[in-house]
Amino acid sequence: MDSEMKALGERARRAAAALALASTEQKNRALAAMASAIRRSANAIISANARDLAVAAEKQLKPSLVDRLRLTPDRLEGIAKGLEEIAALPDPVGRVLSRWTRPNGLEISRVSVPIGVIGIIYESRPNVTADAGGLCLKSGNAAILRGGSDSVESSRAIVACLAEGLAEAGIDSAAIQMVPTADRAAVGEMLAGLGGTVDLIVPRGGKNLVARVQADARVPVFSHLEGICHVFVDRDADPAMAEKIVLNAKMRRTGVCGSAETILVDKAIAGTALTPIIRALMNAGCEVRGDAATQAAAAGVKPASEEDWSTEYLDAIVSVRVVDGVDEAMAHIAKYGSQHTDSIVTGNAATAEKFLRTVDSAIVLHNASTQFADGGEFGFGAEIGIATGKLHARGPVGVEQLTTFKYQVRGHGQIRPQ
Amino acid sequence: MDSEMKALGERARRAAAALALASTEQKNRALAAMASAIRRSANAIISANARDLAVAAEKQLKPSLVDRLRLTPDRLEGIAKGLEEIAALPDPVGRVLSRWTRPNGLEISRVSVPIGVIGIIYESRPNVTADAGGLCLKSGNAAILRGGSDSVESSRAIVACLAEGLAEAGIDSAAIQMVPTADRAAVGEMLAGLGGTVDLIVPRGGKNLVARVQADARVPVFSHLEGICHVFVDRDADPAMAEKIVLNAKMRRTGVCGSAETILVDKAIAGTALTPIIRALMNAGCEVRGDAATQAAAAGVKPASEEDWSTEYLDAIVSVRVVDGVDEAMAHIAKYGSQHTDSIVTGNAATAEKFLRTVDSAIVLHNASTQFADGGEFGFGAEIGIATGKLHARGPVGVEQLTTFKYQVRGHGQIRPQ
Repeated sequence: MDSEMKALGERARRAAAALALASTEQKNRALAAMASAIRRSANAIISANARDLAVAAEKQLKPSLVDRLRLTPDRLEGIAKGLEEIAALPDPVGRVLSRWTRPNGLEISRVSVPIGVIGIIYESRPNVTADAGGLCLKSGNAAILRGGSDSVESSRAIVACLAEGLAEAGIDSAAIQMVPTADRAAVGEMLAGLGGTVDLIVPRGGKNLVARVQADARVPVFSHLEGICHVFVDRDADPAMAEKIVLNAKMRRTGVCGSAETILVDKAIAGTALTPIIRALMNAGCEVRGDAATQAAAAGVKPASEEDWSTEYLDAIVSVRVVDGVDEAMAHIAKYGSQHTDSIVTGNAATAEKFLRTVDSAIVLHNASTQFADGGEFGFGAEIGIATGKLHARGPVGVEQLTTFKYQVRGHGQIRPQ
Repeated sequence: MDSEMKALGERARRAAAALALASTEQKNRALAAMASAIRRSANAIISANARDLAVAAEKQLKPSLVDRLRLTPDRLEGIAKGLEEIAALPDPVGRVLSRWTRPNGLEISRVSVPIGVIGIIYESRPNVTADAGGLCLKSGNAAILRGGSDSVESSRAIVACLAEGLAEAGIDSAAIQMVPTADRAAVGEMLAGLGGTVDLIVPRGGKNLVARVQADARVPVFSHLEGICHVFVDRDADPAMAEKIVLNAKMRRTGVCGSAETILVDKAIAGTALTPIIRALMNAGCEVRGDAATQAAAAGVKPASEEDWSTEYLDAIVSVRVVDGVDEAMAHIAKYGSQHTDSIVTGNAATAEKFLRTVDSAIVLHNASTQFADGGEFGFGAEIGIATGKLHARGPVGVEQLTTFKYQVRGHGQIRPQ
């Protein structure tokens, strides 16, 4: 392993041990000081960002990537406010999750503790630097940040502000470190766990990044590869509600992981409900790709291929299929879904409960838009992402999900009988 | 991938989907019927076990391994009772772990659900076949069992009884499957996740088995490699309590993972407390290996090498070291421990809380023996093992820890604003 990376991991491990014991007040003081430092250093950060943008222009980076990279005074203020919002969240560390007393008098408590050292691997979005650093700090975890190389100057300027905040609160600056090298081998070393110092990897970015992390990581990963989210319009749905939910689930924002990609419509109401739903989507500017029944229901529907059912468009495109009731809808979701977020629209409570119970996704909804798949909408505050893995964190990953637990057992001399 | 293994994985996946929806009554009926089948088939199982024992004798297997392999009518009755005890546990599936209502009226519930398909890899202990199968069934998970090759006939006879129980309750027999081949490549395929069908691997066995599973698994693993457990006798300890706890922690059973391997004694009371502790251990038949101060405290103490501090003896051997207070004790545990179970004996509440808060182990105890590191002693009922990983399951792994959760969101037409 590269000796610089090894030393970075060891510093993170030591910082994590101290940070696990930091008081709520100390962590919040650091977050507030970070926000102040960002505001105070706005000019320096914007200058650093301009250097990144100049390189990006030379490299003829795609406009959408340049937009993500660009920092403006407004966006910087958003970053500072984000840190203050994290400070305002309840401390997720030290919560007594449960407590019970055994017949022998032992008192057992399950108490939340930080996970340890978290590696964040992300694309060239400078705002993630502050978000991820702040969320890790609040949850008592040391962060090792590895952002995209196009944002290296911006990220470095932001990390300098985070370090100022840590210093003001008397916290080891190694609590938030940036990988010092743009060398891609550094990512491989993080994924291998940096010699046992990294407890968890969180990738933030597109499918290629997440796929690489999932394939190569030798430590746990919180991530979702894609969100192929469904809305099923059941035979007992209120047609107006169904149309409203479908439209919002697909079109509110098409680029988020909770946006719907496939609409399933129950054959029993397709005759009346399908055409208005398709028209509403088309009127909103959405391309509709459907099976034969859907193509027959409205002009302008393109034929859906087998591949469409497993495609995350992240765009104003939707696939629509007519299915024979909730069972066929659930079978479709089991086959093509990504265990992320799926919704049923129905007025029938029994059908709804069957769907909520059976569909094996992190989030299942009844009569609500899939776009609620979001830590803020769940009341978690800021989130670092959404996880579709089955263990530990599933769904939105906020500061609580960045903690684990230990058992504290209090006795008065108990020994275990033979 | 071997086509037989692939088919086995796919059957497990289908069985898991159905089992997730099985009622408590149905699962308990299956467990009771399994226990009856074990009792009814006692002769057949003992005959199958005799065939395993005959092969073991030919291979001149070690006596300790032969003892683990041997089934007697008493042990079979223990296996049947174990299944009935699992039936008597509360159903861990479908618990509402938390529930809250958002300002927009969305009602969010976090509900426990099975993990899915669990692969159990174990040594030649036929009783694990029934234990693991029963625990997975109760928690709604399909099990793929791969026991040691020396116990293949015994395990097959037990799995036949489990299948009878499943059939009587109308549950797909693929809910508990045994890997049909003794081919070691099958283990590799399980560790790779059987083409995405295995959600979790639980190894049950010695360090070599666990180390291989941890090194090669591409899916999550619940395990502990070793239990290097400590008892720290603080300057404010009651000497009689300390002696009693140390003796129990080390000697109650030396072969369990929660047995203490190292005793740390505060320098401030070493002058009075150390000699009686060493003598008590020696009188109980324990070999004591110590640092210079410990060697000086009693005749017969052997010198401890650097390696001793990180050795799990699993035997009547203990290492003893004199440390300068709780901080040095915690530093020793951080350096040499295995994040399993560690105990402090002290009458000083502040010192105790510092230890409980700082030591980064799955289980930390105050004034109690490390031998309480056990699912039964925690009130979890039967356990499948102890985990020292940080995520999801930490400490004893019982049926609750074999579940995960999903979010069920109930609305009445809510859409997300822009």
